[in-house]
Amino acid sequence: MQYFLEPRSVVLVGVTRASGVGAYNNLEMTLRYGYRGRIYVVHPRVAEILGHRTYSQVGDLPEVPDLAVISVGRENVLPVFAACVQHGIRHVIVISQGFADADRRGSELQKQLQALAQAAKVRVVGPNTLGIVNAFNGFSTAFIDIPRDPSPPPLTIVVQSGVFQVGSESFTGRFGKGIDIGNAGDVDFVDVLEFLEHDPQTQIIVMHMEGIGQGREFLETAGRVARQKPVIVLKTGRSIAGARAALSHTGSMVGEDAAFDAAFARAGIIRVHNSIELRAVSRAFLHFRSMPGPKLAVVTASGALGIMTADACEDYGLELAPFPEPVGEALKNSNIGWHRLSNPADVWPLGMVSGSFTEVFKRTACLMLADDRVDAVLGIAPVFSSPLHQDLDMAAVGREIAAVNHRGKPVAFWLYGGNQAKVAAALAEIEHVACFGSLDEAIIGLSACHRYYRRLRNELDSHTPRHPQKADDTRPAAHRLAEGVHVGRSAFELLEHYHISTPREELTQDAATAVIAAGKIGYPVVLKIISPQWLHKSDRGGIRLNVSNDRELRQAYAELTELFMSRTPDAGLDGILVQQQVKGTELLMGIKTDPQFGPILVLGMGGIYTEIFRDTARSLLPVRSQQLEEMFRALRIYPLLEGTRGQAGVCWSALLETALALGRIGMEHPEVTELDLNPVVANADGCWCVDCRIIVQEVG
Amino acid sequence: MQYFLEPRSVVLVGVTRASGVGAYNNLEMTLRYGYRGRIYVVHPRVAEILGHRTYSQVGDLPEVPDLAVISVGRENVLPVFAACVQHGIRHVIVISQGFADADRRGSELQKQLQALAQAAKVRVVGPNTLGIVNAFNGFSTAFIDIPRDPSPPPLTIVVQSGVFQVGSESFTGRFGKGIDIGNAGDVDFVDVLEFLEHDPQTQIIVMHMEGIGQGREFLETAGRVARQKPVIVLKTGRSIAGARAALSHTGSMVGEDAAFDAAFARAGIIRVHNSIELRAVSRAFLHFRSMPGPKLAVVTASGALGIMTADACEDYGLELAPFPEPVGEALKNSNIGWHRLSNPADVWPLGMVSGSFTEVFKRTACLMLADDRVDAVLGIAPVFSSPLHQDLDMAAVGREIAAVNHRGKPVAFWLYGGNQAKVAAALAEIEHVACFGSLDEAIIGLSACHRYYRRLRNELDSHTPRHPQKADDTRPAAHRLAEGVHVGRSAFELLEHYHISTPREELTQDAATAVIAAGKIGYPVVLKIISPQWLHKSDRGGIRLNVSNDRELRQAYAELTELFMSRTPDAGLDGILVQQQVKGTELLMGIKTDPQFGPILVLGMGGIYTEIFRDTARSLLPVRSQQLEEMFRALRIYPLLEGTRGQAGVCWSALLETALALGRIGMEHPEVTELDLNPVVANADGCWCVDCRIIVQEVG
Repeated sequence: MQYFLEPRSVVLVGVTRASGVGAYNNLEMTLRYGYRGRIYVVHPRVAEILGHRTYSQVGDLPEVPDLAVISVGRENVLPVFAACVQHGIRHVIVISQGFADADRRGSELQKQLQALAQAAKVRVVGPNTLGIVNAFNGFSTAFIDIPRDPSPPPLTIVVQSGVFQVGSESFTGRFGKGIDIGNAGDVDFVDVLEFLEHDPQTQIIVMHMEGIGQGREFLETAGRVARQKPVIVLKTGRSIAGARAALSHTGSMVGEDAAFDAAFARAGIIRVHNSIELRAVSRAFLHFRSMPGPKLAVVTASGALGIMTADACEDYGLELAPFPEPVGEALKNSNIGWHRLSNPADVWPLGMVSGSFTEVFKRTACLMLADDRVDAVLGIAPVFSSPLHQDLDMAAVGREIAAVNHRGKPVAFWLYGGNQAKVAAALAEIEHVACFGSLDEAIIGLSACHRYYRRLRNELDSHTPRHPQKADDTRPAAHRLAEGVHVGRSAFELLEHYHISTPREELTQDAATAVIAAGKIGYPVVLKIISPQWLHKSDRGGIRLNVSNDRELRQAYAELTELFMSRTPDAGLDGILVQQQVKGTELLMGIKTDPQFGPILVLGMGGIYTEIFRDTARSLLPVRSQQLEEMFRALRIYPLLEGTRGQAGVCWSALLETALALGRIGMEHPEVTELDLNPVVANADGCWCVDCRIIVQEVG
Repeated sequence: MQYFLEPRSVVLVGVTRASGVGAYNNLEMTLRYGYRGRIYVVHPRVAEILGHRTYSQVGDLPEVPDLAVISVGRENVLPVFAACVQHGIRHVIVISQGFADADRRGSELQKQLQALAQAAKVRVVGPNTLGIVNAFNGFSTAFIDIPRDPSPPPLTIVVQSGVFQVGSESFTGRFGKGIDIGNAGDVDFVDVLEFLEHDPQTQIIVMHMEGIGQGREFLETAGRVARQKPVIVLKTGRSIAGARAALSHTGSMVGEDAAFDAAFARAGIIRVHNSIELRAVSRAFLHFRSMPGPKLAVVTASGALGIMTADACEDYGLELAPFPEPVGEALKNSNIGWHRLSNPADVWPLGMVSGSFTEVFKRTACLMLADDRVDAVLGIAPVFSSPLHQDLDMAAVGREIAAVNHRGKPVAFWLYGGNQAKVAAALAEIEHVACFGSLDEAIIGLSACHRYYRRLRNELDSHTPRHPQKADDTRPAAHRLAEGVHVGRSAFELLEHYHISTPREELTQDAATAVIAAGKIGYPVVLKIISPQWLHKSDRGGIRLNVSNDRELRQAYAELTELFMSRTPDAGLDGILVQQQVKGTELLMGIKTDPQFGPILVLGMGGIYTEIFRDTARSLLPVRSQQLEEMFRALRIYPLLEGTRGQAGVCWSALLETALALGRIGMEHPEVTELDLNPVVANADGCWCVDCRIIVQEVG
């Protein structure tokens, strides 16, 4: 990556001969941005562009530049690339569009480019990229005239669109280095992360991601980096329409969005969902270094905004610190003896009677900041543009608070009134101080910081193995399942191999045998139609519950047989299953193979409410007992599992063992792409898988 | 209200003698804001302030001013007020703090002020207010120097804190009139709404509300106004901490937040939840006049931002319009034959090859705008500050689009890059065009417009009767219930009077009688402990389900009796109830009397999942069948009621009749403050209330 970000020399191929307004000439922009290395320009027809003599082909260059930047039409990219390779150039940025972001031909061209690059061991950024913008050394490949940040912050953006580099004011606010990997034809998120891990100019990493190739590899790297530097990801294409658009923008395949949540949580990645969160969270990490606790102290010039702050804290998972009574005593003013401070602390009345609002504001903030139970301070104050309100110098207040902020707690500001921009800029210069454009952004930013630093403090092990590992269990894996859909007996056999309990049952071909089976199993029993054509049996009435005696069994048996014959006369009936009826809380447990992140365990509410409440928790496999417990605790039905309202809780050891065993199946059977246990019935005595469906696909 | 907003003369009492920086002198601010009426100043000691001669008391004034503005210490407010009354002044603003916003003494003072005002028929705004800011005539009572809007927009804010007037840049953006009712000691939201209804300078009403007194009266007025002018309400104190803070800020009592949702929905009020939504929705209504459909066309300079737009549409309830194929054909460029437009339409590549991005952007936007299936257009484009990008003149693009926007569809812009503020200001001048500070704000604003204008078009009847009305049912109301908690028989009697079905049942004192009862009722039956001390029976194991025969009944009966004796040896046992067991979907239905809005009907999922999923819908009473159907449809469990997955749906007529009857109870029994039917069991044959709890309080 070093050569992409800090090339000593670069050749530009595909520079337009026009310059000035509306020309989007990337040579012009590279020069304006302040690049100090050697620039070569290749142009087949023009002898000189913007005072730079040109070469008619790459082979004519007097040296082998560190980097080539190609922005010719897509049909010419491969020949130019080949010439670069032949000349010995080892790093290439392909700006050109029309590859996997376009049509089948484009995907084909991108594959050829990848093959060429791999064979020659040349690294490629792009295609379909704006390339590199590095404010530290002034190197930019953008065809947009970007103002260079005079004191680049240690925030690096890794994106799939140049818009985050050219319009950063609307996104991360500022950045030091920007790397647009475009279609990620060769250099991908993992390559960049591995470089940034050891880059001293990068302390915060913000990514814009439309899709990802090697999910597990990414998580391994990102998880490692996230323990040293916050990794913030804006993953777009969350919606169905958005996912479709992502496919056509950078050719990114987008898996199920919930899988990204599970994956990012495992790696300790901070996910943001929209441009507001992106801006808020970027700013918070840029200015705040630590916030292990959730308790916020609020100093406000407006009681109304204090109320809104309390609402916002609840919305985004922060808490209001208890108000330190000595602070109230210290600030009391006998002229308004009725006035009581609390948290949020509305200091306006005190400011008015004391004659100096800023003095009262500052004293209150400093006193609260000094309190051990306060993890961060939010200041809410007016900044009016009128000369009559010069007394409200909030930048000075910020500096005075910072002077006593020895523990480096976050000090956030939300200012209102007409003079925000100027004061915000001044506050941004102060250590551990940040000013946000809205209350919600302040609270969103602080909350993200808190969650990140809490996790760091808790030192949760977020290691994600790159390759499936064996669990402790030493039983041999069951043999692989045949391709297709497995239900009933063949599915249960796999479960039983992993010691997952299933109800006692017997597949029967006639009512007489069924009566004998029920006698052995014990009433009440359940009758089920078993047929490959009846996968969703309960939807079609193919299940009879609460069969309590021989008479009811005979009748239900006859009805089910008739139902089957009338609905699907041509289907094959394996038989009618007589099954022990187990009662308890209905859960679902399952495995789903995500195209990007591999096997994922899903736990949740089962039975008829599965689809209605979608009360589920996901985790990448493998999982350990502690993670399983956290998953169950994340479910809304957790209180039912624990036992409330006069009902006994479920048998936890049985529940955890079942889920662990299922996880082991997920790791040991890559051929299983989908496995649904629904319902798993759990009660105080145990936990039984009542129905199971397995989909097996040929593994490539 | 006219005299508050447009007084011909005003007397200020409590003006500080200091002026200039940090003085917060309200005479100075009134003069600076541009008030042209006659100003009198009352001061007991100083002869002249800022060139105005003073009067030592109100009685000395040479005329009776239209309005008095009092900002003395709270202990002096009443004497000054009395002097104003005696002098004949009929409109008074009390700026002073320390009333219901403070302590008990303050509440007492406020009550005295109210009594004085009522007796003298004098109207009072405040106390604890900044008063009036009217940009139309330049009248302001604020002690802050506010820049006056040179062309006031028809947006009026009615607030409980002056912060929305002095810092409007951070809230509604702009406003024409601002009325701070503070503690709402006399003039309240209803008074102001009644005035604004007929005020031609007001076309949009934005409220900041901490609490409300007469909820029904407010809804009646607001519902009427909202059919002519959008009414947007920021109701704060949503959280528990926020509600506590609201009580101490303006002395506002805050009811259950869900009640506000139900109430606002009934009246057609647009609720916003935070400062971001407030800014977005205010801006949208200020610029957009109609948007009955949900279909958005997006023109973007960035594919990445198009994807984010698709995500945001799903988040906030808009849809992407189908892409008009002829537009794609019209804009095709053979130099990039691989490029395909869709919606969102990423026009950057076309702009680059055609040589004019703005031309392509404009053509695309105009073509999409002309499509009948498009209800609004969102433009996403860069505005860079560099002189090299002067070609990206998005203000000109906005004007050209507006020139062909004959149907007045909303045209929203989200601009990124460093030159936003200037271009946004230029765009704001164009009819039906608005520029938003973030993508989410644009979509939130458009979505709120869409919902409002759809409702207007649907002409949903949103009439809320001020006083409970009789339903069509002509049966006489049941007699009033005695104070206390009613369960079991006495509760069921009320239900039966309203023809709400309950299971067959008999209260028994011994097992032998219970066996006979079960024989009459028919097995299976349920046994329940009935005791005033056992209201939450199921939590304590006081219910036995599925009792199938005499033997089981005797055993369960003995166990329940023993349980009761061991748990509550001193409690009174009314008996053990033998009840027909009904099976089906478990619902809850209830009535809750809200302190602000009166009786509210609650429908939802019942049984053990009630607390876990809180799947409920609320509506103010009375309700009609159509509204009940909408409530049921709003539940997540609605598919179960309709019947899916092989299960029969419920009997709708029985369900609706039960809910209607419950609504009638709510209207005819003001003494019932809480009524819970849980569960109500619904199946294909009918609907039975299985358990009922009624709380009756003395009505004042």
